[in-house]
Amino acid sequence: MSFFGGLISTVFERRYRGASEDDAQGRSTQALAAELLGTHGEVSGGTLARLILDQYAAMNASEQRAFFGFMVHDLNIDFERVTETVATYRDTPSKKSYRAFASACEPKRQELIRRLNQVPGATARLVTMRRDLLGLLPDYPELAPLDVDFQHLFASWFNRGFLVMRPINWSSPADILEKIIAYEAVHAIDSWEDLRRRLQPEDRRCFGFFHLAMPDEPLIFVEVALTCGIPNSIQHLLADARDPIKAEEADTAVFYSISNCQAGLAGISFGNSLIKQVAADLARDLPEIANFVTLSPIPGLKKWLSHLEEGVALDADHQAIAAHYLLEAKRSDGMPADPVARFHLGNGAIVHAVHAQADLSDNGMQQSGGAMVNYLYDLDQITANHEKFVGEKTVIASDEVRALSETVRPAR
Amino acid sequence: MSFFGGLISTVFERRYRGASEDDAQGRSTQALAAELLGTHGEVSGGTLARLILDQYAAMNASEQRAFFGFMVHDLNIDFERVTETVATYRDTPSKKSYRAFASACEPKRQELIRRLNQVPGATARLVTMRRDLLGLLPDYPELAPLDVDFQHLFASWFNRGFLVMRPINWSSPADILEKIIAYEAVHAIDSWEDLRRRLQPEDRRCFGFFHLAMPDEPLIFVEVALTCGIPNSIQHLLADARDPIKAEEADTAVFYSISNCQAGLAGISFGNSLIKQVAADLARDLPEIANFVTLSPIPGLKKWLSHLEEGVALDADHQAIAAHYLLEAKRSDGMPADPVARFHLGNGAIVHAVHAQADLSDNGMQQSGGAMVNYLYDLDQITANHEKFVGEKTVIASDEVRALSETVRPAR
Amino acid sequence: MSFFGGLISTVFERRYRGASEDDAQGRSTQALAAELLGTHGEVSGGTLARLILDQYAAMNASEQRAFFGFMVHDLNIDFERVTETVATYRDTPSKKSYRAFASACEPKRQELIRRLNQVPGATARLVTMRRDLLGLLPDYPELAPLDVDFQHLFASWFNRGFLVMRPINWSSPADILEKIIAYEAVHAIDSWEDLRRRLQPEDRRCFGFFHLAMPDEPLIFVEVALTCGIPNSIQHLLADARDPIKAEEADTAVFYSISNCQAGLAGISFGNSLIKQVAADLARDLPEIANFVTLSPIPGLKKWLSHLEEGVALDADHQAIAAHYLLEAKRSDGMPADPVARFHLGNGAIVHAVHAQADLSDNGMQQSGGAMVNYLYDLDQITANHEKFVGEKTVIASDEVRALSETVRPAR
Amino acid sequence: MSFFGGLISTVFERRYRGASEDDAQGRSTQALAAELLGTHGEVSGGTLARLILDQYAAMNASEQRAFFGFMVHDLNIDFERVTETVATYRDTPSKKSYRAFASACEPKRQELIRRLNQVPGATARLVTMRRDLLGLLPDYPELAPLDVDFQHLFASWFNRGFLVMRPINWSSPADILEKIIAYEAVHAIDSWEDLRRRLQPEDRRCFGFFHLAMPDEPLIFVEVALTCGIPNSIQHLLADARDPIKAEEADTAVFYSISNCQAGLAGISFGNSLIKQVAADLARDLPEIANFVTLSPIPGLKKWLSHLEEGVALDADHQAIAAHYLLEAKRSDGMPADPVARFHLGNGAIVHAVHAQADLSDNGMQQSGGAMVNYLYDLDQITANHEKFVGEKTVIASDEVRALSETVRPAR
Repeated sequence: MSFFGGLISTVFERRYRGASEDDAQGRSTQALAAELLGTHGEVSGGTLARLILDQYAAMNASEQRAFFGFMVHDLNIDFERVTETVATYRDTPSKKSYRAFASACEPKRQELIRRLNQVPGATARLVTMRRDLLGLLPDYPELAPLDVDFQHLFASWFNRGFLVMRPINWSSPADILEKIIAYEAVHAIDSWEDLRRRLQPEDRRCFGFFHLAMPDEPLIFVEVALTCGIPNSIQHLLADARDPIKAEEADTAVFYSISNCQAGLAGISFGNSLIKQVAADLARDLPEIANFVTLSPIPGLKKWLSHLEEGVALDADHQAIAAHYLLEAKRSDGMPADPVARFHLGNGAIVHAVHAQADLSDNGMQQSGGAMVNYLYDLDQITANHEKFVGEKTVIASDEVRALSETVRPAR
Repeated sequence: MSFFGGLISTVFERRYRGASEDDAQGRSTQALAAELLGTHGEVSGGTLARLILDQYAAMNASEQRAFFGFMVHDLNIDFERVTETVATYRDTPSKKSYRAFASACEPKRQELIRRLNQVPGATARLVTMRRDLLGLLPDYPELAPLDVDFQHLFASWFNRGFLVMRPINWSSPADILEKIIAYEAVHAIDSWEDLRRRLQPEDRRCFGFFHLAMPDEPLIFVEVALTCGIPNSIQHLLADARDPIKAEEADTAVFYSISNCQAGLAGISFGNSLIKQVAADLARDLPEIANFVTLSPIPGLKKWLSHLEEGVALDADHQAIAAHYLLEAKRSDGMPADPVARFHLGNGAIVHAVHAQADLSDNGMQQSGGAMVNYLYDLDQITANHEKFVGEKTVIASDEVRALSETVRPAR
Repeated sequence: MSFFGGLISTVFERRYRGASEDDAQGRSTQALAAELLGTHGEVSGGTLARLILDQYAAMNASEQRAFFGFMVHDLNIDFERVTETVATYRDTPSKKSYRAFASACEPKRQELIRRLNQVPGATARLVTMRRDLLGLLPDYPELAPLDVDFQHLFASWFNRGFLVMRPINWSSPADILEKIIAYEAVHAIDSWEDLRRRLQPEDRRCFGFFHLAMPDEPLIFVEVALTCGIPNSIQHLLADARDPIKAEEADTAVFYSISNCQAGLAGISFGNSLIKQVAADLARDLPEIANFVTLSPIPGLKKWLSHLEEGVALDADHQAIAAHYLLEAKRSDGMPADPVARFHLGNGAIVHAVHAQADLSDNGMQQSGGAMVNYLYDLDQITANHEKFVGEKTVIASDEVRALSETVRPAR
Repeated sequence: MSFFGGLISTVFERRYRGASEDDAQGRSTQALAAELLGTHGEVSGGTLARLILDQYAAMNASEQRAFFGFMVHDLNIDFERVTETVATYRDTPSKKSYRAFASACEPKRQELIRRLNQVPGATARLVTMRRDLLGLLPDYPELAPLDVDFQHLFASWFNRGFLVMRPINWSSPADILEKIIAYEAVHAIDSWEDLRRRLQPEDRRCFGFFHLAMPDEPLIFVEVALTCGIPNSIQHLLADARDPIKAEEADTAVFYSISNCQAGLAGISFGNSLIKQVAADLARDLPEIANFVTLSPIPGLKKWLSHLEEGVALDADHQAIAAHYLLEAKRSDGMPADPVARFHLGNGAIVHAVHAQADLSDNGMQQSGGAMVNYLYDLDQITANHEKFVGEKTVIASDEVRALSETVRPAR
């Protein structure tokens, strides 16, 4: 909390909250949660919500598990009431019968989460709570229903209409910039100097989505390079010593890194909206830009190669194998095996070009033997591309990439 | 939309949206809604959402009814699926079974409303949509389930954690101030000059709640007078020619008018939170203020008197009768008959004093024969008061008011 | 001062200023001013400055005259020191000799004004002080040297580099908008509704210059109409009931009113910079706009006609006479007789068209018999036009206006 | 310039500036300056001003010297006109005669500087210009009169009334924070981590003055530590690993570093105003704070000791010698020899305590053998202290320091 916010809050607390808080301090989180659900209206809710969140913040993993278990089991739906109310609603539809049904099939834990969200800063703490929960799920799968509820609520709260896109640059607050350093998931940022190279030059841009209730926390951000021509290597793009070009001379905008920041918002999708909005803004400000592309990793390539059936080898150069992988390697549901491919193709982009030796970092070599790919966002085609991809699972690629892919043949 | 926002949007549209929109233009809103629900991800959703909202904006009442009917009936739950999935979840609780249940018992119309909310300005348009719906409900009660869904979503979206309180004063934007003139529901504001008298003097304050997605639209606002002593008449408080006092000389803050602004947010309660926050801020800024009171109308008094059993007359002066009404007149559920009393007592206030001749306006005379009441917010007691009121339905009043009330006896 | 500002200041004062202020309270403004000039550094200056400004604010005209007289006479230069130091500087130029000279020829009253400017809000109060002075000058011309100093300082403080242009629209603060109503000098604004018609429609704009130290006070503002074609009548342009056009359909931006707001800044010129900046911004935002014109009054026309030599009458229709007046009527220095013409021609505009019956208001009929004029700002030509006007005193006009002017012949 | 600002400017330039700029490009800065002075009004001034500043930015030191020489000699006053006009004004005081005098004794170079200041960003470039000039002065003292003019103009432009104080913290823009790292003149900041330790903990504050026309450039900043008790060592205060205290627990605010940022504003004093304002704000926000002190270096101590007359040695411990130096060592004008002492004593502070071993850094040992001093700002006494110091050159010290000082005796 800001210093001033803290001050306000202190004054408020001293004069405002009565004896009830002291009473509450010795009680269990579960008891407080039950009381919070029992209050009518907003009066004492704030105090209870804060106490619960404070108690939660001090919990260890075992206590968290107990609290989550309480939410899953004690604040669950009443199965019989659901069965009864759905029947009544079916037979005599009315406001009353539907309200009874709607109330019956929403578990009380959802209302608890909403009520916890009434104090300043609560939203971020609830996102952290879900992050903790996600960490426990592999060991305690019985807690999963709670995660379904979290995801449902967060999809509503972090609806696109409630997000704002903000540029992130060398004039942004340091406490936001340090999070960019921390969250960059694709090409690590080593230092403040490295960060400056990504933000300050005229041919670099960065944009993020933010939510009103978490103004200092980026939800997702994308880094963009403005270039002449479509780039074929990340080490060239991020070279320490390079001469920036003038923004208005660029003909290409390269989305070379996109990172989600909040583990607790897993499954809430922002990336497509962000890329679209950034492309729209750049198109407006820099009318010379003709190409919107990515320079993307191919994270699943090496692993896929290593799992090919024994005896099978691919008789082709590496670049062609990468193309082949992107176009032909599939999951059981028919979707591309590569997760980054699924993301961009799902957004309506196409596989535009594949480059060998494009990421010589340890990580790049390990994932894909150094290969990278440009996905191309053709603004006039992305809706049609998207429909085709989702409907027919068709991977659209440039002729060049398709030709390359077709050169790959199992070696005898 | 702001001029610049419009410009951005235009540039964006020209370059961005493809052929699909033109295709869509000739189709029905229902068809578009079905398509919006069918899209995977965020790609073409924005365009569809805007089209639907634009088509909606052009609808007459009959078309609105048809669209709402479509949502109630065609986008309803599948009763059988609810029955099946709740049984499966009960018997084999898991992420999968709970997700299936949760999905089955949320009608698709909720998801439709969420998806409509992805374009700029959509939130305000959805609030308007519900306002229209509320207008139709008396004649078309079968649409009521849709209102239950709207209320459920809005309670989540307009959660206290997502609201910001902002002062409203003579430096506020004119387009917000004209809404204050329009929305003032208790003591009408006649003109910009009248508004100025409510906002500009040093001993007057006004505060409202706003939501990020509707920054120009107050949700609720409260008008405050700073006084020396607790006031006993609204005409004195709002006199045209009066000498303002210095803010730091005041010992009392009077909440003399509180108005909800958005008919489409009926049933979403903001008033208690607003009063608490305003009291907290004033307590911080003006430590001399010792009393937080209202000067409130008694809207149900005259009506109640006129419905007393025939032959019964009350042998007391008017002021005592008003006290008696506030303390003793009840609804069938045991709660006070007066709606304003229910609001403030529910917030934890007490009935502090009753005044005759306190509102000589036409409206004031008609509602209560001119009587008004001070509810007192004792910051140290409101939680306890609230619990008592909600739990035991006890109306707490000052000794003076209670004594006054007890003088009232049926006349023989 | 804002409420919060006031609060800060009060806290500060209570703890900060010592006994010295109380000592000062009984003393004359002159004595305080002398002390303020005598202080070394910034320590006690703030308290003295505030006291002097407060005492000034309470003065009547006679006391103001006395205070101004003190500044003119007692805080004047020392003639002998000027003569000595200029000789020394001429004979032995050095930092020391120049500093002595510079110090000698700046009267102490300038330093006093600068020192008064160290407290919040002082700049606006000093502008008011000069306004008072200007009001006294006709009767007390001996005070004029003080005005020379004020103008010199204000030209430095209100340098173009320190001004910001802000749009003024229906979202602007009410306390700024009420100043627009008050200051509009060309076509009076009758009411808030009238103001709204000037600001809210999509084809209307308003922009003003503001200064950091007076953020709530516009210095000058210009009202703009976006139109299709160049307008020929103000009553048409400002008609109550008219259908706004879309901003992007306009081909013309009409500067139909430009008003200075601060009498105390007389002689500090802002208008040219404002028109240039507004034209630049509109050219950027609305590339379809091809014409930048005014629709201007001809304030001196009727008066000039009434002063023509006896027996002379002009044999021409009114429109031609207006053209003739604008092109041929001169002051003794060869510049156009009409002040509005001097302003726009001096900015590099040309006389583009003249219209009869263009302003049928009382004021318009009285000034010019209803005639108005379009001055045209051709962005590619204004520098050249300006040079020609200033250098050769040439009034540039369209062929049409020139032909019209030449039809005017003295009647026999 | 910001990206967007750049865009505006480009659009503007393309449509707005006419042929004149191209004409100008081949001409000398001197010729352009003469033309800028010759223009009437604001029309073509902007273009000329920008050209001159751009040409200046490309100059080497020799060209700068030539340009400054031009300003000193060719844009000087006309000595005879000064002599004539002062006589006329003395004999026949009037607006005209005073205006002629005022005009005669202000060299044209001042008007040139003002006219250069009309384009965005010019103020910062003019401050840089003076910095360059100050660098040349030791070798070219004949340029000194120009510096007198710069200082005169800057004192007017950077008047206290035009500055805003802003907190600088870990939420401040990175491009401002990197300037804090660069400008810290007292206790160097090694890294962003070191900076964070100065800004982020709850018991640390930093504040700076900014000017509207240079919003990204701090003019001066002060670093503050909130402590319990008055600190006696900087290494303790700035220890890497320390537990911050709660702000509201502090009883002391320590101004431990104050740094001017703009070499080009040398001689324009901001420090006293800044300290006063910070003390006022802290006093308001944290009423528990009872002491406002510095922890200051004693930069002249070792040098003074080394210049003591041969044979003289001081028979005392180091701490006492430091006290003696602060109280007794004087410049030829009777003011304290130590520059930091002159600053704080001039502000009305007193010498409160002296500490040995308080700054063990290389710099601290070299300047003062590790000794530091607390100056105390008693808000009730500083005006009186200041007057006494300035008027009588009395160094006020605590009894303890005075006693310590008096123990120092020349050794035999």
